[in-house]
Amino acid sequence: MAKQKKTQRPKAQTPKGFRDYFGAEVAQRTEMLRVIAGVYHRYGFEALESAAVETVEALGKFLPDVDRPNEGVFAWQEEDENDNGDWLALRYDLTAPLARVFAQHRNDLPTPYRRFAMGPVWRNEKPGPGRFRQFYQCDADTVGSGNVAADAEICAMLADTLEAVGIDRGDYVVRINNRKVLNGVLEVMGLSDDDQKANVLRTIDKFDKVGESGVRELLGKGRLDASGAYIDGVGLSDAQAEPVVAFLTSKADNTAGTLANLRAAIGDSEVGAKGVEELQSMADLLAAGGYGPDRIVIDPSVVRGLGYYTGPVFEAELTFEIKDDKGRPRSFGSVAGGGRYDDLVKRFTGQEVPATGISIGVDRLLAALHMKGRLDTDTTGPVVVTVMDKHRMADYQAIVSELRNAGIRAEVYLGNPKSFGNQLKYADQRNSPIAIIQGGDELEAGTLQVKDLILGAKIAETASQEEWSERPQQFEIPRAELVERIKALLDEQNQ
Amino acid sequence: MAKQKKTQRPKAQTPKGFRDYFGAEVAQRTEMLRVIAGVYHRYGFEALESAAVETVEALGKFLPDVDRPNEGVFAWQEEDENDNGDWLALRYDLTAPLARVFAQHRNDLPTPYRRFAMGPVWRNEKPGPGRFRQFYQCDADTVGSGNVAADAEICAMLADTLEAVGIDRGDYVVRINNRKVLNGVLEVMGLSDDDQKANVLRTIDKFDKVGESGVRELLGKGRLDASGAYIDGVGLSDAQAEPVVAFLTSKADNTAGTLANLRAAIGDSEVGAKGVEELQSMADLLAAGGYGPDRIVIDPSVVRGLGYYTGPVFEAELTFEIKDDKGRPRSFGSVAGGGRYDDLVKRFTGQEVPATGISIGVDRLLAALHMKGRLDTDTTGPVVVTVMDKHRMADYQAIVSELRNAGIRAEVYLGNPKSFGNQLKYADQRNSPIAIIQGGDELEAGTLQVKDLILGAKIAETASQEEWSERPQQFEIPRAELVERIKALLDEQNQ
Repeated sequence: MAKQKKTQRPKAQTPKGFRDYFGAEVAQRTEMLRVIAGVYHRYGFEALESAAVETVEALGKFLPDVDRPNEGVFAWQEEDENDNGDWLALRYDLTAPLARVFAQHRNDLPTPYRRFAMGPVWRNEKPGPGRFRQFYQCDADTVGSGNVAADAEICAMLADTLEAVGIDRGDYVVRINNRKVLNGVLEVMGLSDDDQKANVLRTIDKFDKVGESGVRELLGKGRLDASGAYIDGVGLSDAQAEPVVAFLTSKADNTAGTLANLRAAIGDSEVGAKGVEELQSMADLLAAGGYGPDRIVIDPSVVRGLGYYTGPVFEAELTFEIKDDKGRPRSFGSVAGGGRYDDLVKRFTGQEVPATGISIGVDRLLAALHMKGRLDTDTTGPVVVTVMDKHRMADYQAIVSELRNAGIRAEVYLGNPKSFGNQLKYADQRNSPIAIIQGGDELEAGTLQVKDLILGAKIAETASQEEWSERPQQFEIPRAELVERIKALLDEQNQ
Repeated sequence: MAKQKKTQRPKAQTPKGFRDYFGAEVAQRTEMLRVIAGVYHRYGFEALESAAVETVEALGKFLPDVDRPNEGVFAWQEEDENDNGDWLALRYDLTAPLARVFAQHRNDLPTPYRRFAMGPVWRNEKPGPGRFRQFYQCDADTVGSGNVAADAEICAMLADTLEAVGIDRGDYVVRINNRKVLNGVLEVMGLSDDDQKANVLRTIDKFDKVGESGVRELLGKGRLDASGAYIDGVGLSDAQAEPVVAFLTSKADNTAGTLANLRAAIGDSEVGAKGVEELQSMADLLAAGGYGPDRIVIDPSVVRGLGYYTGPVFEAELTFEIKDDKGRPRSFGSVAGGGRYDDLVKRFTGQEVPATGISIGVDRLLAALHMKGRLDTDTTGPVVVTVMDKHRMADYQAIVSELRNAGIRAEVYLGNPKSFGNQLKYADQRNSPIAIIQGGDELEAGTLQVKDLILGAKIAETASQEEWSERPQQFEIPRAELVERIKALLDEQNQ
């Protein structure tokens, strides 16, 4: 045979940091999003689906002097004659598009505008294990209301949503804090240097990990890390650090106690007092709605990184225990977060438009439900009608059509029918519950052979047919009783 | 007041050719996709969701010497040190990613692999009225089966899908043709010049518009367009053109007649005979499954543009009449198409992998259902609890929580409560069925005022309250009977 010229073949690979989702994974996410949309809808929120692509200008994360503005986003320039086309980018979250949508359509939208959105977002970041560059978010926001009742509503809805998708009450908690209280604390400390402020905020964010003494060290001279590295401190005196520690440790046994501690921590700061008042209002509203601190709690240790929050911030944590990489128990952690951001729409319109919202990390929540065994998606494959005689495809097609018309998931084997073993292997790989066989004898007798693959698998597992002797693994049925007998067997299997 | 420095504000605009979808539009599409997924699943297909982003190499539409490979797609280059990163692109359909997925995961996937996928695709094309650069597709494909039973199954599934989403039997038809028959016709004609072949194919594609005599002209010397422009012909003699015309006009009153005509048209071409045989098999299989020519019909005028089809091709047309731009009646037209493509996976693996599939144009199908009045999405807004006293938000919150817990869509008005008129205007804009009012008097009496906004709208329309006198537009209920009375009124409104 003549040597063929080798041609360069393309690699069959997802780009780095992207992945494919198969079968049950897709169905589980779709179903979870459907349930969440139901709760959001019941709360009066309306669906919004904007395009994946926005102008870089509208996303607004980029400096005008950067040549290729794809820091953190996937961006490209539109072709035009003068090489002067718009820069476009894939959205990196669902909040920036919402600000653009509200600014663009504000004359047609009701105010306040309650909207929810669910879909993929893209981040041009270095991928890592379990860290993908495309992932789902599921957001709900209220635009155009400065009332903390809007924030309280979002928190209540978040609690209802977690329960609706299958997280038991007691296995989650929604924690609330308020940026204004934090600003009050910084004011009381007399910090004027912005860098120092930022360092204090970063330290507060570590409270969860390093605890009170760790925070004291980090606010002061510094601290020896668990890894042995020395972390420089912010350089405050003990007296200066005191309000921060008081703030972080202000959570008491009940809401009234926590609020009293916060009032003490913010001293005579006006903005701090406003923040405490807002927390008090939210607590009152939530209590009136029946949401006690077993579900939604004021917790001053919640900070949330994003710079754009201006008032209440919230975070939903799943509190049940899992094991970490090293087998140590820890709580599952955060699955959703959000807060009030009053300046995002202003970028477009010049007018301040108050807004507040939440974003659920869909994949984290799915992982949690998976761990709790709460994803009961049906992974049963189709009934497989095997092909004993390739010239009789029409007969097999008739069988499968009858089953499908009766609502039963079914298919004819469409591979090469030569090896019957391969057909059964295929049925096994598809997780099929039943194989149907009709050779020449059965055709003549007007019957079908029915093979119970679930029972077959059980027998294979225990290596003993005796305990299943009452139930035959394969049996014959009249062709005319196809649908009723298959239905009955499927019911039996599902018991 | 001092003049403020004017800062450049970003434009709140979707990029050209992209749009936002609101409320019911999103819900209707979601629901339609859910129904379609149900049918596909019943047929044994498994969901697949690949990322929006693929390597340009895997999409494989581009010449290696093009500097920026974004002809028709949105593409960009990954950053790396040597300015030598991979080119990435947004997928332009769901078939190219399927070929990549099957090649990448073929050792873990069952063969044949039946999969469905639904989601947006992107085209970097000039947008026009109703033509967007992001739109939904909904595909089902069987990879790894060369059996035309797979093609027949796809056609049956397409018919079932159209009926499941609300297209009546009789309002659609799935037409089937076979590329091999067409190739047989070209063979019989003795055409060797590829350009001329392509011109003949293009002409065949116009049969729908210009009819038999038009095709004869276009295959010959040319034709005067309706616009007055002269269209050059392919330059065939009348005798040479005859097989094409015979092929195009071979559709008879029944399948047997059509197939006989086709056999005559392809003469002694082997590939043509193979094509007719495949059509015969499909017709037999479909008949056995109960799909008669009222639903699925062999129609030689179906060509389908895409070059990659190698065997059966199909198209679903909605046959009910609509009015075109100029008010003339025409049939709604194509909503889905597909066919067999046996070479797509080979690009990656070198091995031929037969495949066949269908793609539904989701937005076209939604538009059709909209025209037929088959989109009965509930567009009713939430019950709105108005705010008479802003210090009593907790009371209003309690009312709304009770309603939500009873499964009733409800919300508190969260805008500025100063003007009661604005609150009712908001309720109107939200299409709310009911407003609930509790001022000081009602609070004291332990009651609520209930305003029937649906009735109110009806009275406003007819400008006469008399005919509705039995049903009051506003009435008082005991606070304790909130849920049952609101439920009863909603039921009444829905009758």
